[in-house]
Amino acid sequence: MPSKKPLILVTNDDGIFAKGIKTLVEEMIHLGEVWIVAPDKPQSGMGHAVTIHDPLRLASENFGVPGVKAFSCSGTPVDCVKLAIYRVLKRKPDLLVSGINHGSNSSINVIYSGTMSAAVEGAVEGIPSIGFSLLDNDSDADFTPARKFVRQLAEQALKQDWPLGVCLNVNIPKLKESQIKGVKICRQAQGFWSDAFELRKDPSGKQYYWMTGAFNNPDKGEDTDEWALEHHYVSVVPVSFDMTAHQAIGPLNTWDFNEK
Amino acid sequence: MPSKKPLILVTNDDGIFAKGIKTLVEEMIHLGEVWIVAPDKPQSGMGHAVTIHDPLRLASENFGVPGVKAFSCSGTPVDCVKLAIYRVLKRKPDLLVSGINHGSNSSINVIYSGTMSAAVEGAVEGIPSIGFSLLDNDSDADFTPARKFVRQLAEQALKQDWPLGVCLNVNIPKLKESQIKGVKICRQAQGFWSDAFELRKDPSGKQYYWMTGAFNNPDKGEDTDEWALEHHYVSVVPVSFDMTAHQAIGPLNTWDFNEK
Repeated sequence: MPSKKPLILVTNDDGIFAKGIKTLVEEMIHLGEVWIVAPDKPQSGMGHAVTIHDPLRLASENFGVPGVKAFSCSGTPVDCVKLAIYRVLKRKPDLLVSGINHGSNSSINVIYSGTMSAAVEGAVEGIPSIGFSLLDNDSDADFTPARKFVRQLAEQALKQDWPLGVCLNVNIPKLKESQIKGVKICRQAQGFWSDAFELRKDPSGKQYYWMTGAFNNPDKGEDTDEWALEHHYVSVVPVSFDMTAHQAIGPLNTWDFNEK
Repeated sequence: MPSKKPLILVTNDDGIFAKGIKTLVEEMIHLGEVWIVAPDKPQSGMGHAVTIHDPLRLASENFGVPGVKAFSCSGTPVDCVKLAIYRVLKRKPDLLVSGINHGSNSSINVIYSGTMSAAVEGAVEGIPSIGFSLLDNDSDADFTPARKFVRQLAEQALKQDWPLGVCLNVNIPKLKESQIKGVKICRQAQGFWSDAFELRKDPSGKQYYWMTGAFNNPDKGEDTDEWALEHHYVSVVPVSFDMTAHQAIGPLNTWDFNEK
């Protein structure tokens, strides 16, 4: 008799051996049949990159959680999702979860994030997809307080009608579970990075730069993910892969495209 | 006396020595003072990737167009934009143009495209930004028919009120200039890629995959970029970096986040 368990695809951008994906898998095994296809090395900041000019490798891994099938992939998080759907899984998954990221993907970080790009790719494929991030960059971060919310959101995702063309960007504050006030549905805060590039010289005297920077959020709206996180809520932003700025179509139609 | 010419930043994802960026620069020199910061190698499909774990190199280049300052960068298109703004240019540019890409960035390609991610990054920085793409993947593609439209759009961008938080995704059909009917403001068609992965073996017998695939567009709307391009128009889609799916906030608020 075929399994009636939901099929859950797990990926991330910190690599298959990160602590965050372990936590995520440990929660997902209570909800369905879990398959992992995740990068073989950290892929933070990879955005929606795909590998076009290089071949991809896929390797079976012993993930150490009974019943879980795991594969590492040499590519980006989006490559992992594509390979999983078109090569590894026998059918389209019922749920895709990505993370738990070590660090925030709130506000504008959604566009740089490999974690979120994997979830966006799931949405493009018509799969209910959630990216989870904990506001703690530490490779040994404590994911315990995130567990309850991760499970709750995944359960709801499997139960409720999923909004078409959407994935969820879930950020969890770095707090004890008892300090977290609950879950808030938000919009993406209009924040941005002021970047800086630190100039150094290598041993042969050649210059190079390290990117650094500071996050700025002039958007004080109380309906934003930044507001929710600052006020001890888990933020949930529905994210669309339709990037059309519909409100700009009218104004652009007044431009003159027929002059010489 | 300081120059009153507009400051124009040019980048791309095919690399600083691609034919498309040469064409773009040749048009931009009529409109302002041109600075190039572009990848030192092809970066197609890099999406919104940024380089976090590696240092970045920047090198002055002789681009071969008088009066143009040019730099190659070891990073992604988004790295190029960040380095240009925070390290190379003396002031914020009046216009950022990216491309001309060798190949389409219509529909869902906007999220995979390095060309468009550079333009999106410009928008995040508050700079009027346009990504240009010609529907011809050939490295020796004929960009002549694109010239008029590239110049027209850049001129309008420097003249008109720019819509806040938006960049433009401009795709140009592979046709003679006389066959192109004009410019259409569009929304992103809801297309997607059916991917396939071709399995091969390397000389040592190990398996690897090449990503291939076919673009599908079930979206038959006559207001889409795909429709415009098929009907011999230049498509212009305003693109937002706010990825919030605002229409999904209501439905998500009916979910139950308080159960155990």
